Parts: sequence; structure tokens; C-alpha cells
Amino acid sequence: MKIIAINAGSSSLKFQLLEMPEETVITSGVVEKIGSKDAIFTIKFNGKKDEKITEIKNHSVAVEMLLEALISNGIIKSVDEIEGVGHRIVQGGEIFQEAAVINDKVIEQIEGLAPLAPLHNHAHVIGIRAFVEALPNVLQLAVFDTTFHQTMDETSYLYATPYEWYEKYGVRKYGFHGTSHQYVSIEAAKRLNNKHAKLISCHIGNGVSITAIKDGKSIDTSMGLTPLEGVPMGTRTGNIDPAVLGLLQTKEGKSLEELLEIINKKSGYLGVSGISNDARDLFKAHFAGNKRATLALQIQAKRIADYIGSYYIQLQGLDAIIFTAGIGENSFLVRKLITDHLGVLGVEIDQEVNKATMGDEAVISTPNSKVKVLVIPTNEEVMLAREVYSRIDK
Amino acid sequence: MKIIAINAGSSSLKFQLLEMPEETVITSGVVEKIGSKDAIFTIKFNGKKDEKITEIKNHSVAVEMLLEALISNGIIKSVDEIEGVGHRIVQGGEIFQEAAVINDKVIEQIEGLAPLAPLHNHAHVIGIRAFVEALPNVLQLAVFDTTFHQTMDETSYLYATPYEWYEKYGVRKYGFHGTSHQYVSIEAAKRLNNKHAKLISCHIGNGVSITAIKDGKSIDTSMGLTPLEGVPMGTRTGNIDPAVLGLLQTKEGKSLEELLEIINKKSGYLGVSGISNDARDLFKAHFAGNKRATLALQIQAKRIADYIGSYYIQLQGLDAIIFTAGIGENSFLVRKLITDHLGVLGVEIDQEVNKATMGDEAVISTPNSKVKVLVIPTNEEVMLAREVYSRIDK
Repeated sequence: MKIIAINAGSSSLKFQLLEMPEETVITSGVVEKIGSKDAIFTIKFNGKKDEKITEIKNHSVAVEMLLEALISNGIIKSVDEIEGVGHRIVQGGEIFQEAAVINDKVIEQIEGLAPLAPLHNHAHVIGIRAFVEALPNVLQLAVFDTTFHQTMDETSYLYATPYEWYEKYGVRKYGFHGTSHQYVSIEAAKRLNNKHAKLISCHIGNGVSITAIKDGKSIDTSMGLTPLEGVPMGTRTGNIDPAVLGLLQTKEGKSLEELLEIINKKSGYLGVSGISNDARDLFKAHFAGNKRATLALQIQAKRIADYIGSYYIQLQGLDAIIFTAGIGENSFLVRKLITDHLGVLGVEIDQEVNKATMGDEAVISTPNSKVKVLVIPTNEEVMLAREVYSRIDK
Repeated sequence: MKIIAINAGSSSLKFQLLEMPEETVITSGVVEKIGSKDAIFTIKFNGKKDEKITEIKNHSVAVEMLLEALISNGIIKSVDEIEGVGHRIVQGGEIFQEAAVINDKVIEQIEGLAPLAPLHNHAHVIGIRAFVEALPNVLQLAVFDTTFHQTMDETSYLYATPYEWYEKYGVRKYGFHGTSHQYVSIEAAKRLNNKHAKLISCHIGNGVSITAIKDGKSIDTSMGLTPLEGVPMGTRTGNIDPAVLGLLQTKEGKSLEELLEIINKKSGYLGVSGISNDARDLFKAHFAGNKRATLALQIQAKRIADYIGSYYIQLQGLDAIIFTAGIGENSFLVRKLITDHLGVLGVEIDQEVNKATMGDEAVISTPNSKVKVLVIPTNEEVMLAREVYSRIDK
């Protein structure tokens, strides 16, 4: 059975076609710069990559192109072969406690949550509408980044802000990267052969979030109302004293909007190092002896270790730490900087294995380590496809 | 030798006269509503309390009244008996790595730090000037809340904001309550007979801060650039996603200044419970079954436990947890809610002893507890007097 997993941005559309339940990727690709005359359509299959630059007016056109490309490349004979579509949605608020079959009401609800994720939810709806138009008779499912974290207790998700802010505007911690944390925690539980495993999952990419998982459920996570909260990231500060914004307004006369832009887009790796938001540039600079590149990496590692300590307390123990996403899967250095803090938990890393692990699954802890440390490549598309597959009558 | 410890606010002046090195309190008191026609002068000595309501035009008049009251009440025969004055100063920035003998330059530097603590440093300088005028030949020392935390590593004190914000404006974590954390950690190290003890000190009053201490030095603390950061307090949120401010600006059209006012003065216990910022009111409501009062206490306790977890990792172990300040010394409930999270650290509380401890020093952990849990009443005035005493030729 063929299922397609979709991640729509305001001018982009990522797709992956999977054979289920085998979970094999048949083809994948991305459409970029939708709405422009030099949009880029890229599709990968059979080890080849095909790129085309052309005008793509809107998401509907992008979806038509994608479906035609699947047929013209002989990947499918007819669109009828696609039996389900999974759409990744960033913000599901408190409404969506699980994935939702798409209908008019669900679309309206997703749009209604846009104030909590202005950059994302509008774009997702555009993607959904284009697919519903192209494949009106196929099961389409909205899968939310926030759903996995809806199991948090209110002592974890409520801020100590005025309670009315929660009641009126939904001000609370939602957490993100839920599909990723869920995927790697399921895989880790399988490896440990323990459904009740106490896990801390470290999703470290351009965005970074840390999640505490027990009995397969998220009990706390580092991102908050938005993906700004938590630990320092590529361009985001993570936690700061909010009074910093007041001081900067006094000193530089900037508006709150401008200041939020800076702490979202000019901070983190980029702000501390002054070099780049790209981890690979920082690694180069670090090994060349650049002090502030090192500092940016050390600050992030220390703050991640802080969360691991908090979650160790909340979980009342710890079976495994999981590293995933771009940096977590590929950087031995970031994994070393973090785990160097964790001696008191009995974490022992085999640095040879750690150094050799780039993008593959591995156990990087020693056999004597009290806590297993795993690298597990994340796979949000498979998670989406699994959700869709589970809803289809077989 | 008589030394006076001073804490000057914008319209108040707290004082304590101590006999050193015995550390006995001879007299103490407070002048309130300075600048008004119904200012209140309160002095306590020999178990009596004397209160007078009268016009007090400014801090100089308050200081004159105080010195006269010491003589008229037979506490001292002449002001010459006062051999030193210690002034508590909230913000010492990175300039003051230790207490500083007051002179014109030091006063200027304290004022120069006012942008980092607008409500406090100006008031402190007014107090200092009044005392320098009244006792020009006496050693006067500025003792800073921030000094104790100047031993933090930059990976702890730097935010992942643009590095120029640190260089230009001093944007970083400073931490507060330093004199209190230092005092209780010294006392705890004495009780444990271990100068190298790994300690976590929980100063829980209207303001709350948690500090990790190793070898007598602060290695991390929960408050930040200002006392807003960290855990929820009487009226302050502690950490939130700064994007909350952006959402509220959109929803309610409030300015950043107004929003900072709310998260500083209308949040915490008050915001969550909707009842009061006073812990005692919350305890009453909690025992009467008020759900949101309980929630406010639970949220605070959980976030304090989070910091304890982070600091356990940073300290690489833990010998003792210290509770101090108004709530920490007096509330068995708050201590219970926090320590209930700490089972995984081997913390075991003797709830009988915990319940019986109100304002006195006590060990509330059981003999089997892996981590000692101490209640130690704080004494910032003694700490100030000790600093002054150490600078006087004997």
C-alpha cells in the first residue's frame, strides 16, 4: 500500500512516498520557491535525482506536478495507487489529542490555531487544500507536532503567568518535534525490549528540543508555547530572562517584534559565535581554535545537560538517552560535549564508536554504562505513514 | 566591636546593629515611607519594639533619627562606638568581584550599574550618601548580592543572545540573593564538617533563587540578568517562553513595559492562584481544597525540583540541600512538595521533623537519606557584618 507523507511550508512542499507496512521509501523530494518563476522541483528515486526549474504558481500546481512526475517516471501507474496522505502540522493546540482525519471542520480548527504558530499553520492548510483537491477520495490525515506532548501534566505545561492568559489565549507549553520524539522513543523501546523504558530524547538539529518519555508518553519537553523556548539552537536563544528584552528596548529603542525576531533568528550558535548558524561551520571554527565557536557549542551542551538532569528527576531514573536529527545523528563532538557532563549518572561513552557514528544507528555507550546512549536517525515521514496506515481498512 | 548592617530601599531603610565577632544582634529596625509625613520608625531592642510615626523628609533625616535613637535608648553612648557600616547592594555587575570600601569612585560605579537594577541601585546610593555624611570617619563597605555568583563559568552565565549584547550592555546572568546563599552554604559546610561540600541552596521567600555551590563557590544560580528569571515566585513568573510576550502584545495591545510589569508583579503565586502573592494565603486555600492554590504551589515545587536535577548534574553529586528564607524556613508544605520529587537522589525526609520545623535550624532528612536536607535560617546582616569586621584592623 502506497502512502504519501507531506510537509508543507509557505513556499515549499516536501514529500515522501512510502510502501506500507514495509516502511520502504519509494521516492522523495521537495518543491521550493512555490509562487515564483524559478521554483525548483526535485525528485529522488532509484538512486537518481531529477531537478527541474520552472514556474510553479501555487501549491495546487506543485501537487499536480508531483502526481504527474510519479506517473511519468513510472513510479505509479495511476494516482489511485495512493491510498493515504499524511500531513505534518506544527500546532495542534489542546484540540488535537491525536491525529485527525481531514475534513472541513478540522481544516478550520487548524487555521484557528494559527495565532499560536503564525508561520506554520496557514501554510499547512494551503498544502492540505491542494491535496484534497487533487485526491478528493483518498484518506488524508493531519498529524501534529504537539500531539505527542499532550500527555504532559499541568504542573509541566502551565506557566506561572496570569491564569486568564491560559484560559483566553491558550498560553502554555505545547512542545514540538513530537513526531520525531515519538518515533525515536518507539525505536529505542524496541531496542531495549522495554515498553516502560525511561527515556530522554535529544532532537538536535537547527531546532533543538529535549523530551522526557515514560511508558511511551511525553511527560515534559523543553520547547514551549513556541519553538523558541528551551536550549540554545542554530539561531534561537532558548531560555533567557525576559527582562533582557526590556533592557534592549531601553538601550536600542527596538520594538518587541524586532527583539523577538533577533532572539529567534540572530541568536543561538549565530549570536554567540558571530560566525554562522550552521553547526558544520562552528565545528570547523572550533577545531581551528576559534574561542567563541567553542563557547557557542559549550553553552548549548551545558543547557542540554541541565534538561537531562531535570528529566532524570522527573522520570525517577533513566534507561537511555537518545540522540537524533541533523546534529544529534551526525556530530560526535556535540554528543561528547553533552555526555561529558553526565558522569554522575553513570554515563560512559565509547569515544571510538561515538566518533565513528555519523547518521547511522548506534549504541555509543560502553557495556558498563549505567545509562544506554543511543543514536537513532529520526524519521517523521515513517511516523506519518504509520499513522495513516493504521487508519486504513485493510 | 559594633557594626551596623544597612539595606536601603527607595523609601525605606532596614538596619541591624551587631556586636562582632560574637555576631549577636544588639538592636534592629526599619524606617518606612521615607519622604512622607507619616513615615514609620521602628526599633527593636531588649525584647521591646518601639514604633513612631512622624515626618521623615529623606534618608539623611532617617539616619540621624536612627543614630539618636541608639543613644537615647542607651544602646550606645556615642556614635564613635560604631566602627563599621555594611551596605547591602543588589547589583555589582562584573565590576565588583568582592565587597568594596566605599569612596566616591565606588559610589559612581554603583550608580553606573543602575540600568541593570533601576529599582535598587539608585536607592542604595541614597542610603550610602546619608551614612557617609553622618559617619564620615567610619569604614563603610558595599556588599553585593551578585558577588557570590561571580565565580560562575561563562557557559553558565552567558545567554545565547548576540554576543554584542553582553559586550555593550552587560547582558548576562548575574544571580541574586548571593549574601544569603553564601551565608547558609558556609553554615551548612560547618555542620557537614566539609569545606568541599556539594550543596544546593534554595532561598524561598517572596523572591526565590536556587544556587549550586561547590568548594564554597557558586557555580550556577537560577536568577538571571534580573530577579525575574528562574522559578515561579510570589508575583514573578520565573522562566517563560519570551514569545508569550509577543502573543499578549498581539492580543491585548500592551507595551513590552506593561507586559514585563505583569510578569514581575501579577504572576507567580498570584497569577496562577488568582488569590494572593502571599504563601500563607495559598496554604490556607490549599488546605481548604482550592485547586488553583494547590496548582500554584505544585508548579513552583516542580520547577525547583527541575533546578535541583540540573545542579545535581553540574555538581556531579550532592551532599546537602538547604532550605532558607521566609518560606523555606517556615513551610513544611513547600519543603514536602519539593522533596517529594527527589526520591531518585535518595532523598528521604522525616516528615515529623519537617512538620515541626518553623524558622529554626534543623536536619529534616532521615539518617538513611543519601542527601542531607537542612533548614538554615538565613542571616544576610551577619554576613554583611562579617565582611566589614574582616576589613577592620583589630
